Amino acid sequence: MSEQIEPIATMAAELNRLPGIGKKTAQRLAYFIVSMPLEDVRSLSVAIWNGRKAIRFCSVCGNYSAGEQCSVCADPARHNGQICVVRDPRDVAAIERMHDYRGLYHVLHGTLSPMDGIGPEDIHIRELVSRLQTEQVSEVILATNPDVEGEATASYIARLLKPMGVRCTRIAHGVPVGGDLEYTDEVTLLKAMEGRREV
Amino acid sequence: MSEQIEPIATMAAELNRLPGIGKKTAQRLAYFIVSMPLEDVRSLSVAIWNGRKAIRFCSVCGNYSAGEQCSVCADPARHNGQICVVRDPRDVAAIERMHDYRGLYHVLHGTLSPMDGIGPEDIHIRELVSRLQTEQVSEVILATNPDVEGEATASYIARLLKPMGVRCTRIAHGVPVGGDLEYTDEVTLLKAMEGRREV
Repeated sequence: MSEQIEPIATMAAELNRLPGIGKKTAQRLAYFIVSMPLEDVRSLSVAIWNGRKAIRFCSVCGNYSAGEQCSVCADPARHNGQICVVRDPRDVAAIERMHDYRGLYHVLHGTLSPMDGIGPEDIHIRELVSRLQTEQVSEVILATNPDVEGEATASYIARLLKPMGVRCTRIAHGVPVGGDLEYTDEVTLLKAMEGRREV
Repeated sequence: MSEQIEPIATMAAELNRLPGIGKKTAQRLAYFIVSMPLEDVRSLSVAIWNGRKAIRFCSVCGNYSAGEQCSVCADPARHNGQICVVRDPRDVAAIERMHDYRGLYHVLHGTLSPMDGIGPEDIHIRELVSRLQTEQVSEVILATNPDVEGEATASYIARLLKPMGVRCTRIAHGVPVGGDLEYTDEVTLLKAMEGRREV
């Protein structure tokens, strides 16, 4: 093969489009897949395609879901008056892994970013407002990322919801558990000091 | 989702079976794939399945091939009397990337490993011997890995082929280009000294 073997090269090129899979890794994976039993490759291929096809957005919160409503919204025990607002479904998965939060979610599918021309109409803020008008909500927890866009989005939503008489909270900033003060940036340290508590 | 969203979990579990893809990476990839356009996921899934299905072993050398013979064996210009013996098709790809070798290959699909019960009958040594009886071969280059099994396999084949009057060579051991003497192990250094050449 003066050039690559075509089906392997095609497979590697497709794998190379995934995040964190460079050219070399893609090639290595493609060679591995080619050496796998036919049945296993079928499962892999089918899981990818069926998985993508089966997923839609929960009609209530916008989380990924296999049905009309995601399993959180469909669970009556989770309707406790709390709504946690996040940027995307991955963040829902992260918070669920914590196994502690027992309320609902609202997925914005983006954050405000005037630089990229993303305004309040482009993310699911209107859907959040209409949920507050129909659902019993006692607290909106703003859990967007602790970066510029995330902070701006959290402030915007807080200002929007305050007049509606809903309590808005923001997740705490501080030193990560297991982190090292010496290597913590100044802004995080400042936030950690500001957020200090009686022990 | 008190538990994972099922189609995403299935996808992540399948991806997790690939080498170098841990649980977290698999989850991250699955979430990314779910967010990809449907058409792109179809291409990915089809490339994996079709790629695997299209690949068979070259009837001559045992390399991966899309047809009856691989592109090296099918190329008359490569029949120059040299056969490079490697462990698996990945090694063929590595040597081809060098863009220098112009001979043929023979893929053993394994190396001798008495500990694992892999003897000469379990890898494609017999096929190599019969090629020597039908093809015009002037040199067999033993390019198995420089590890215990690779060395043992190379010695075994060399002893087997010598009586047939075929010239057997072994790829050189030495200090890797760009490497550092200080961090080179003693055995490699010894081989590098033994293999020194007039400059």
